[in-house]
Amino acid sequence: MSEVCDKVTEGDINSAARLIRDIEDDIPGVKDILKELYPFTGNAYVIGITGAPGVGKSTLVDAMLSHLRREGKTVGVLAVDPTSPFSGGAILGDRIRMRRHALDDGVFIRSLATRGQFGGLARAARGAIDVLDAMGKDYIIVETVGVGQDEVDIAQIAQTTVVVVVPRLGDGIQAMKAGILEVGDIFLINKADNEHADRALNDLKSMLGMNQHERCADRWRPPVLKAQAAADIGVVEFMAEIEAHGQYLRRTSDGPCYRRSKESVRHDLLEMVKYQLIEDMTRRLENTGNLDRMVDLIAQGKTDPFTACEEIVLNYRAIAKSQ
Amino acid sequence: MSEVCDKVTEGDINSAARLIRDIEDDIPGVKDILKELYPFTGNAYVIGITGAPGVGKSTLVDAMLSHLRREGKTVGVLAVDPTSPFSGGAILGDRIRMRRHALDDGVFIRSLATRGQFGGLARAARGAIDVLDAMGKDYIIVETVGVGQDEVDIAQIAQTTVVVVVPRLGDGIQAMKAGILEVGDIFLINKADNEHADRALNDLKSMLGMNQHERCADRWRPPVLKAQAAADIGVVEFMAEIEAHGQYLRRTSDGPCYRRSKESVRHDLLEMVKYQLIEDMTRRLENTGNLDRMVDLIAQGKTDPFTACEEIVLNYRAIAKSQ
Repeated sequence: MSEVCDKVTEGDINSAARLIRDIEDDIPGVKDILKELYPFTGNAYVIGITGAPGVGKSTLVDAMLSHLRREGKTVGVLAVDPTSPFSGGAILGDRIRMRRHALDDGVFIRSLATRGQFGGLARAARGAIDVLDAMGKDYIIVETVGVGQDEVDIAQIAQTTVVVVVPRLGDGIQAMKAGILEVGDIFLINKADNEHADRALNDLKSMLGMNQHERCADRWRPPVLKAQAAADIGVVEFMAEIEAHGQYLRRTSDGPCYRRSKESVRHDLLEMVKYQLIEDMTRRLENTGNLDRMVDLIAQGKTDPFTACEEIVLNYRAIAKSQ
Repeated sequence: MSEVCDKVTEGDINSAARLIRDIEDDIPGVKDILKELYPFTGNAYVIGITGAPGVGKSTLVDAMLSHLRREGKTVGVLAVDPTSPFSGGAILGDRIRMRRHALDDGVFIRSLATRGQFGGLARAARGAIDVLDAMGKDYIIVETVGVGQDEVDIAQIAQTTVVVVVPRLGDGIQAMKAGILEVGDIFLINKADNEHADRALNDLKSMLGMNQHERCADRWRPPVLKAQAAADIGVVEFMAEIEAHGQYLRRTSDGPCYRRSKESVRHDLLEMVKYQLIEDMTRRLENTGNLDRMVDLIAQGKTDPFTACEEIVLNYRAIAKSQ
């Protein structure tokens, strides 16, 4: 076993932190270390916390940390900041997040500022989760900003996905629009101390009800809860629902644990293959100058992007063939 | 020229609507029609409107429509609803959007409920824009919900990308967090009738200032505007900024128009190639049963996902070779 693997499985913070950065930067040797770590993963319970900016996700995670630490559980937190394609980094880092747990040895907080596209975020998040998992954390909380594909990807990684809304934002139609109904295992209405909270609760419940006709009778029915995370109100009830969802998964999973269910493994593997293939193809395309040649032809009106695309894919296969 | 192509370029609404659905569903013959349409595209001015749910994007688009129609311009609107991977469709459709322009012949409104992932949204949006473009629309407005990769993709399609925020949501740190500073050509603070508007304006301006040191002196400096779209306040000034940005692009582009610039063609082509390759690989993987075999091996602990991934990519090349 390599030294890095050794240290990470012993829970060494510096090694884990360095490895997570390496995963993010996708440096070549990282895959071999992840291979080595793989047998040590699959034990942590992964919770995804998602919702629009301003709904109080970080405050909620902070309250969850306090709760889990009181129960003696160790926790890894992964704060996924959205891709910033130009500056290539998160502006807010670990510094201002969850300050009060920063000196607690049982808590390990990292933020991920994923670069690139095409599944890069999910890939890096998956790797970082494996690291926290191999460190022996009991729980891993993945906090993510954004509306759209990111949620879906994280829903596929986490055992339990929590969608956080606030009354003002989370009125019926908006939540629908964002298409987040389908990814939430638990819905939490945060900052529920104003007059809109009950309306939001009823709206969400009725929408989830509408959604139920597509589900089988024995499927998990996502509960809708109210909380004020900043005042630690409703957090105990919320944690109990996460526990209940975990029990449901253990009861219904076809693998030794949910993250090792065939469905989950299949999804992860396919994502990994896609990423790998795109990377390989893009690198070769840059090296051969084939892309630039096609761009010139299109710009000169000598071909169209659709024909050019077909040629490039055929060419890639030819390269693969000769290699 | 095919009949579909004929009809679309003549502006036939039914043919265009059907073609857009076909693009979304990615049915096989669609690529040939897009090839035919290609020479008729590149003339429309594409404006992207993006921002979190609840900031009033649809209201703004409605106000823009009124403005552009008063000037005699024809407009296509594409409302991109986020992926809903489970139900596979937008819940809100064209019906409740921009009702007041529904009977105007110079306006064509479509919503896109993109399925699939891995660039599927951008691919479908790009195709639908080509259709509206080939119909002869002067302007195409693409409205998109979401924070993250979607914005970036749309920023690459549109000539001018507008980021809409509201004072309550759009305070400094949150906007930073979402990484949208880099994709906006114009920032609009909507619902600017409350006390937070000026603070939001100053916050945004100072953040954009911070961002400027990475830009060259002759680069476009994104303006920050205030508006109340619902009351038609600030819309004229906003449209003037879009016009100014368009002039800037025409001055600085290396192609006959911005959408035909080499940078833009290169990006579009690469996205198309990635999509094509992934689709081809996934189909073959399903057909050979290779994926299921690997999943079984991983579930049995006989291999790990990283090794399995390498084997699959090598196998794909072998298939490509034998074909």
